Amino acid sequence: MKYNKKELLNREIKHIDIKKFNSIPLIESFDDMAFQSRNLARACEIFDTMIKEEKCTNILCLAGSLVSAGLKKVIIDLIENNMIDIIVSTGAIVVDQDFFEGLGFNHYRGFINADDSKLQELMIDRIYDTFIDEEDLRVCDMTTKKIADSMPPGAYSSREFIYLMGEFLECNGKNPESFVLSAYKNEVPIFCPAFSDSSAGFGLVFHQTEKKDHISIDSVKDFKELTELKVKSDDTGIIMIGGGVPKNFVQDTVVAADILGVDAPMHKYAIQLTVADERDGALSGSTLKEANSWGKVDSGFEQMVYGEATLTFPLLASYVYHKGNWKNRKAKKLNQFFE
Amino acid sequence: MKYNKKELLNREIKHIDIKKFNSIPLIESFDDMAFQSRNLARACEIFDTMIKEEKCTNILCLAGSLVSAGLKKVIIDLIENNMIDIIVSTGAIVVDQDFFEGLGFNHYRGFINADDSKLQELMIDRIYDTFIDEEDLRVCDMTTKKIADSMPPGAYSSREFIYLMGEFLECNGKNPESFVLSAYKNEVPIFCPAFSDSSAGFGLVFHQTEKKDHISIDSVKDFKELTELKVKSDDTGIIMIGGGVPKNFVQDTVVAADILGVDAPMHKYAIQLTVADERDGALSGSTLKEANSWGKVDSGFEQMVYGEATLTFPLLASYVYHKGNWKNRKAKKLNQFFE
Amino acid sequence: MKYNKKELLNREIKHIDIKKFNSIPLIESFDDMAFQSRNLARACEIFDTMIKEEKCTNILCLAGSLVSAGLKKVIIDLIENNMIDIIVSTGAIVVDQDFFEGLGFNHYRGFINADDSKLQELMIDRIYDTFIDEEDLRVCDMTTKKIADSMPPGAYSSREFIYLMGEFLECNGKNPESFVLSAYKNEVPIFCPAFSDSSAGFGLVFHQTEKKDHISIDSVKDFKELTELKVKSDDTGIIMIGGGVPKNFVQDTVVAADILGVDAPMHKYAIQLTVADERDGALSGSTLKEANSWGKVDSGFEQMVYGEATLTFPLLASYVYHKGNWKNRKAKKLNQFFE
Amino acid sequence: MKYNKKELLNREIKHIDIKKFNSIPLIESFDDMAFQSRNLARACEIFDTMIKEEKCTNILCLAGSLVSAGLKKVIIDLIENNMIDIIVSTGAIVVDQDFFEGLGFNHYRGFINADDSKLQELMIDRIYDTFIDEEDLRVCDMTTKKIADSMPPGAYSSREFIYLMGEFLECNGKNPESFVLSAYKNEVPIFCPAFSDSSAGFGLVFHQTEKKDHISIDSVKDFKELTELKVKSDDTGIIMIGGGVPKNFVQDTVVAADILGVDAPMHKYAIQLTVADERDGALSGSTLKEANSWGKVDSGFEQMVYGEATLTFPLLASYVYHKGNWKNRKAKKLNQFFE
Repeated sequence: MKYNKKELLNREIKHIDIKKFNSIPLIESFDDMAFQSRNLARACEIFDTMIKEEKCTNILCLAGSLVSAGLKKVIIDLIENNMIDIIVSTGAIVVDQDFFEGLGFNHYRGFINADDSKLQELMIDRIYDTFIDEEDLRVCDMTTKKIADSMPPGAYSSREFIYLMGEFLECNGKNPESFVLSAYKNEVPIFCPAFSDSSAGFGLVFHQTEKKDHISIDSVKDFKELTELKVKSDDTGIIMIGGGVPKNFVQDTVVAADILGVDAPMHKYAIQLTVADERDGALSGSTLKEANSWGKVDSGFEQMVYGEATLTFPLLASYVYHKGNWKNRKAKKLNQFFE
Repeated sequence: MKYNKKELLNREIKHIDIKKFNSIPLIESFDDMAFQSRNLARACEIFDTMIKEEKCTNILCLAGSLVSAGLKKVIIDLIENNMIDIIVSTGAIVVDQDFFEGLGFNHYRGFINADDSKLQELMIDRIYDTFIDEEDLRVCDMTTKKIADSMPPGAYSSREFIYLMGEFLECNGKNPESFVLSAYKNEVPIFCPAFSDSSAGFGLVFHQTEKKDHISIDSVKDFKELTELKVKSDDTGIIMIGGGVPKNFVQDTVVAADILGVDAPMHKYAIQLTVADERDGALSGSTLKEANSWGKVDSGFEQMVYGEATLTFPLLASYVYHKGNWKNRKAKKLNQFFE
Repeated sequence: MKYNKKELLNREIKHIDIKKFNSIPLIESFDDMAFQSRNLARACEIFDTMIKEEKCTNILCLAGSLVSAGLKKVIIDLIENNMIDIIVSTGAIVVDQDFFEGLGFNHYRGFINADDSKLQELMIDRIYDTFIDEEDLRVCDMTTKKIADSMPPGAYSSREFIYLMGEFLECNGKNPESFVLSAYKNEVPIFCPAFSDSSAGFGLVFHQTEKKDHISIDSVKDFKELTELKVKSDDTGIIMIGGGVPKNFVQDTVVAADILGVDAPMHKYAIQLTVADERDGALSGSTLKEANSWGKVDSGFEQMVYGEATLTFPLLASYVYHKGNWKNRKAKKLNQFFE
Repeated sequence: MKYNKKELLNREIKHIDIKKFNSIPLIESFDDMAFQSRNLARACEIFDTMIKEEKCTNILCLAGSLVSAGLKKVIIDLIENNMIDIIVSTGAIVVDQDFFEGLGFNHYRGFINADDSKLQELMIDRIYDTFIDEEDLRVCDMTTKKIADSMPPGAYSSREFIYLMGEFLECNGKNPESFVLSAYKNEVPIFCPAFSDSSAGFGLVFHQTEKKDHISIDSVKDFKELTELKVKSDDTGIIMIGGGVPKNFVQDTVVAADILGVDAPMHKYAIQLTVADERDGALSGSTLKEANSWGKVDSGFEQMVYGEATLTFPLLASYVYHKGNWKNRKAKKLNQFFE
């Protein structure tokens, strides 16, 4: 096979639209079955309960290559229909994937058994079966530098920086379908506890190298702000897609509040869609029952679903969308809390 | 079963000593076999090659509950015998587990099917089959606050903060077996790209809440420092235990150097011990061959080993220890670079 | 929790109906995405191609607890709408689960963290989150004995025995929803290469213990018959749900034909829905690409989908059902070949 | 890369020798750790207890490509040192791999990313990273036909047939290292509940095609014989490498005994080394705790170890070998029971 960049990058990934199919009949059947189908049905019910309960603050945790895989619109629909109030994510999803597409770039259908050395020569990056133009990514890196250059020196939370990324997209974006943009408009705060571990990291390192008076991203400030939101909320529920740092970070806010002397309740609801399992003792696959021993997640309304997110997340989101209980829910606009 | 805190926390986890058993005969047999045994044998050879090649800077990436599981001494022995030069880790391993034990606390043998609600009442935290006294952890949290309180206000890298944790242990530690302490003494830099996502996060949030003039942890500075070390090195090799942020962060330094206009080579060697797989497209399980497309890891000397780290990491480390090639290797003492 | 048999067995598992929801829009979206969603979309296309190609004999392989999990009707619909021509299955699915339900018994919703010793005292068997009344199972065991007792002594293939089970259900069944019954009526042969490893094994051992002149189940005859069907077919395609013996058995027929001196083509199409992976070298998770080296599966139209069958199988079957290409397909009625 | 058969098949797989390394210090360290290392340590203790308890009949279950991966000698050492009394296996391990090597053939080191179509042209079969000469395999197939041709017509258990395979190797074998041969000499019965699903299946189909008066392999007889051994034993313990049919078959003997009106106890000890997990409800990954609900495995001395067998099985076997408790154990020679 001859590798030609243009031919390799000729079919774009498209994002699934949960409004165009109704998963309710499927999920209701799943509820009468067993194994992961029933687990998914229960996760759907829990998420729907969270939406119905007005006092509950809903936190969406994102890890894995979700946007490059076609799940961007799912996240946008959850934001724009007031189903989630806070996002905690890996940096790659927010910057390299979503902001990247907001700048007008695309992800492409690739294939698994590629000759990676040849891809590298062509500056094509591979994620399993997906291709990315590394030259586009470099533009994304530099855009984050430009944003940093425009900011007064000081220590910022990732949330503050991402807010400015949303603002940037509003003025300069080339694709209105971006959850960073939607979150900006809907005042939904986005946190990246490991923000430098992303395309923004490249831009920010460049920024700090060039400028003596520069900005810094203070991960403590992230944790402080998220804990303040937790404290401010009556009840909280978490929807975790994948594990990693976002999962741990959100769970820890309960303990952080406690340490600050505030009596915040455990997360009342918790669901996780994951392929990880508990057997290696790592946090990503640790059960939510285990999190109960830490005083982080309450028992009763927690559910693990073992399955890959491109299969399970659209079904979950379509269910709650078509249930329609979000119609009676007010936007919490939590970014306003920090103004 | 009646839950009594003292009885539940009565048998300490002990750390395996790679010097006390010689895995070379086993690994040499594995090399003639198939599947993961052969993969592990190849990883051993690659690590040993890294140690023999004087110009190669060896970076150890740590993710998962490694120290609570009894792997602390393995890491210490790699540091003290000059087999690794840089550590990139999750915050939990460094603070909640290693520094925690340095303060004199312990992890305990627990069991899987515990009643987590009862554990929570007793302030016992569970990691799969391991128990931790939450009251001890709170002391650890507060100790990081004390360290932060003693520092001049400003933006620090996690490396700088962890260096002070090492200093603290040297003066006030109650257990000399700590890799934070060993790294401090041997000038091995430790980076935690998501530092707040740990026990230190609690202490630091408290610190920032109390003090107007406070410190911050600048994750960009972490990335900048690590990239500088990458640039400064001739060749680099990475030994990854688990995936997560450390894996991504280290790989990204190649690209970061490129963006800064420095022509740093790809990581020449790369091995990963993991239970994750590639099928969900997430970074933790992405193959090192895939990393080659990104221009991060060179092809030729990369090896994935699919197995849980408590089984594979001691065998890997015992092999290189007993091969003895570290005896001719000089300590790089890379922390001195930043002085 | 007090364990009361009646209360524990009070909510039946219900079988999902692929005719009641249309997965085509979902699958078409999946085709533009990545990871397992795209893999599933490709599997759907391949299965649909198999149905469109009149000369292709479609073989369904079944492993795992599929019927107890609510997938019985999916199998029935594939049979009754002429989408599959041969079934190769584990014994448990055919006897303990499908025939069992045909006798009027049910599977029940259970839960994971059950006290298994207490369940055992109550004669309740558990499969992950599903309960079965062991007393019902014993009736099923004895029914197979009754069938065996009625047969002239001799060596039978499992196919022949299962045909009589279908006949038994037609006369004595209490629930017409049984794929053993549907296959009987539609002349679809069912093979269980490890037939004694099932509820029928119990009945047959009892039969052989009681009678000097008894029947035997000749697994060679199974292999011979299945190979004859392979030889007789122009092209073949296999849809594998799970791995295990059925996967291997069907693939081997290509080689068996070759050994008998017949030039049968490799399986032209092959899809597998599974949670297993290739890293332990076991057959269940071996890739279909690997099967190509054995000359068993042709390259070009093979697809692995990594996901649990309760999630993926209904979507696959609903897709081909609603595509409607089975309407032009004639029933092959392959059981008639052996008359 | 040019594919040349001779070059591709130039380095043989060698079998690990548990006598040449002593895993006791490693396993004792593992016992003080966590996760799978501790689980493996507990499995070692349970197996050692089984060996010490004279009245316990030890059943080894084998699934996966164990012999091709270099684990043949482990099995031989367990047999020849009286540590196991019965083997239940997949057909492929017994015929395609062990008997095959007994005939003087070998497995070869291969590699994963092979061009499988080219391998197929060269008649090289691939198992993950291992190569086999398909022409050698055909000789193996035909040898089983020869054995069948020499037998008086009738219905045989797989155990009876495999016994004759051992006899054949004693007279005609070219490599004395074969567990089929060792089991024959030590009167250890070997059962393959799905015997036709192997190289022998090819030979037997050919045999049945050629001869009107032929033999058959009666899987009911297998089950009956194994149940008789279970009934005859005081206590039983099972060591399962992988899952599949052998796991289920052995567990079922408890129920079979019950159905025959004999009050046989549950399996007192049970350990399983596996990579499967419980989340898909399939038998291979079902927990041994779950098996307790079925009345098959007693609670108290059961242990799952999640890890790949090439890593874990040699450590387990070396531990019990060097513990030396087999020295006081008498061979049960259970094949004599059927004479």
